[in-house]
Amino acid sequence: MNRAVALAPPFLAACRREPVERTPVWMLRQAGRYLPEYRALRERHDFLTLMRTPELAAEVTLQPLRRFPLDAAILFADILTPIEGWDLGLSFAPGPVLERPIRAAADVDRLPTVSSAESVPYVFETVRALAAELPETTPLIGFGGAPFTLFCYLVEGKGSKSFARAKAFLWSEPEAAARLLDRLADSAIDYLSGQARAGARALMLFDSWAGLLGPDDYARFARPPVEKILAALGPLGVPRIYFPHQGATLLGEVATLPLEVVAVDWRLPLSKVRAVLGPGIAVQGNLDPAALFAPPAELDRAIDRVLAEAGPAPGHIFNLGHGVEPATDPGQVARMVERVHRRSAQGEQP
Amino acid sequence: MNRAVALAPPFLAACRREPVERTPVWMLRQAGRYLPEYRALRERHDFLTLMRTPELAAEVTLQPLRRFPLDAAILFADILTPIEGWDLGLSFAPGPVLERPIRAAADVDRLPTVSSAESVPYVFETVRALAAELPETTPLIGFGGAPFTLFCYLVEGKGSKSFARAKAFLWSEPEAAARLLDRLADSAIDYLSGQARAGARALMLFDSWAGLLGPDDYARFARPPVEKILAALGPLGVPRIYFPHQGATLLGEVATLPLEVVAVDWRLPLSKVRAVLGPGIAVQGNLDPAALFAPPAELDRAIDRVLAEAGPAPGHIFNLGHGVEPATDPGQVARMVERVHRRSAQGEQP
Repeated sequence: MNRAVALAPPFLAACRREPVERTPVWMLRQAGRYLPEYRALRERHDFLTLMRTPELAAEVTLQPLRRFPLDAAILFADILTPIEGWDLGLSFAPGPVLERPIRAAADVDRLPTVSSAESVPYVFETVRALAAELPETTPLIGFGGAPFTLFCYLVEGKGSKSFARAKAFLWSEPEAAARLLDRLADSAIDYLSGQARAGARALMLFDSWAGLLGPDDYARFARPPVEKILAALGPLGVPRIYFPHQGATLLGEVATLPLEVVAVDWRLPLSKVRAVLGPGIAVQGNLDPAALFAPPAELDRAIDRVLAEAGPAPGHIFNLGHGVEPATDPGQVARMVERVHRRSAQGEQP
Repeated sequence: MNRAVALAPPFLAACRREPVERTPVWMLRQAGRYLPEYRALRERHDFLTLMRTPELAAEVTLQPLRRFPLDAAILFADILTPIEGWDLGLSFAPGPVLERPIRAAADVDRLPTVSSAESVPYVFETVRALAAELPETTPLIGFGGAPFTLFCYLVEGKGSKSFARAKAFLWSEPEAAARLLDRLADSAIDYLSGQARAGARALMLFDSWAGLLGPDDYARFARPPVEKILAALGPLGVPRIYFPHQGATLLGEVATLPLEVVAVDWRLPLSKVRAVLGPGIAVQGNLDPAALFAPPAELDRAIDRVLAEAGPAPGHIFNLGHGVEPATDPGQVARMVERVHRRSAQGEQP
């Protein structure tokens, strides 16, 4: 065994493109409804109570780790959590709904300045509890929503397929839109650096709606606040993971962001992702969550394909390309985790 | 003036990559809610009545052509129209809802065989009425939904962001899924060739959910029935347009389909689309419909960018990358059509 391998948890080593004995694996929404123990907790507590009560949020975060030898934990929270203090009447029904969405330049200028330590102290308590509880080998990932994605909800006022109103606001009020995106960047810096100080050992920025923009508009509107956040987080020394969902055509822009890891969905094979990003960036992904419904032999083939596409170079964290579906059989997840570990360990032996 | 230019309507010439005096333009959902005259009709008739009454469907189809010098008309219908005879309890609320979705292999084998001439005769009456009414220079485009897209609705039973249940069916029941996709291909061949015989002068296949699949699964599940349809339509001699929505990563697969035109959304600039498709395929697109909310000078720049990306080679039909939004100002549409015509005509002069 190589000394470099022994020093860091496999997840952190892979983020830094260091060699690992076996490919680390975790799963988007690994703490969630596909687990009977999560559903049992949800019968006793609503979603917001789970999220806002540090002991419960920590318990939910830990549930999948008791079942599967996952290589990372991820904070149980919502991407809209950091704007809870913005007085927009945010609730979950179950998707996010804002009573007072942002519809005009004046709405942007009226937003209060409030630190996340004041508005959502429970997040940092949860992170501290988890950092104390988790073994050294299983780092906690902190996370938040990227500015354009939060912008979509703030302007649209709810979930949407096309976020047409939010995109129209970008074009009709470009200056106000840029101010709002910059405010969201500052909020994310405060929120994510607070998580790192509380014990998160990696930080992930979810840009769930990046794929609604073409490359020109992404470069103009969505990328600048992401770059601001990632640059500000750099001095913290924790790996920065960025997930531009449905962002296959944006990877040329993403490749020049200051970050360690790009997470990708399943729409582009990892060999092509790596070709665009270059050797200096690790990749995270990208099994289609639908593959977890396949018969075992077919699931195995799909897993092996992802590993083969990732190739032998260091810097691959196995994950799904999107959150695990609630109807997924946990037995299939166990099979996936076991196979990723076993096959990738074999792959290193000649 | 060049004789070749004078012979065919610009839309059909561009589909065949013949030179045109100015770039033809039409718009996805050009007959629809952004037009006050459409909303006035909808106040008196529900959506299904509009679609199923040939005089009304023809009237709706013609409305945008009375306002704007568009280069093509498109049949007013729904992508699910051809499966109305399949006894699945289809209704619109306003999105499609199926009372009896397909959930098992046995459901596939129970589907009735019914021709579209029997189940939706009103479609062909509408096409005949329009073919008689439209000027020679404004061809009517017939259309239908691609098999994987219809499959998504048939299995899910309603609209969805991820169509997780439909995708799970692909993986858990691959043989039954392939049978259903093949049945949908046969239905589309019957439906689309019937439209061409009734007077449609081009045919467009909408694959609205193609982008939910990665390239491997697209090649395995979605592409074969599309290829079957396009090959069967070839002998009709009308241009075949295929629209793999959010399909930027699928264009390598699409490039080898038997077709004349690929329609694309705004996520990939047309120069890159053309580079993947090669010189033998015309392209249709790809302004982001959100750009129609921009101030006039900015809208103009966005239009000019699309024209510049399409380049000077023949074979470009200007369009949006997705349906026009209901809140769009018709004045902005007029501006777009005028500018596309004027700028592209200037572009041909040295």
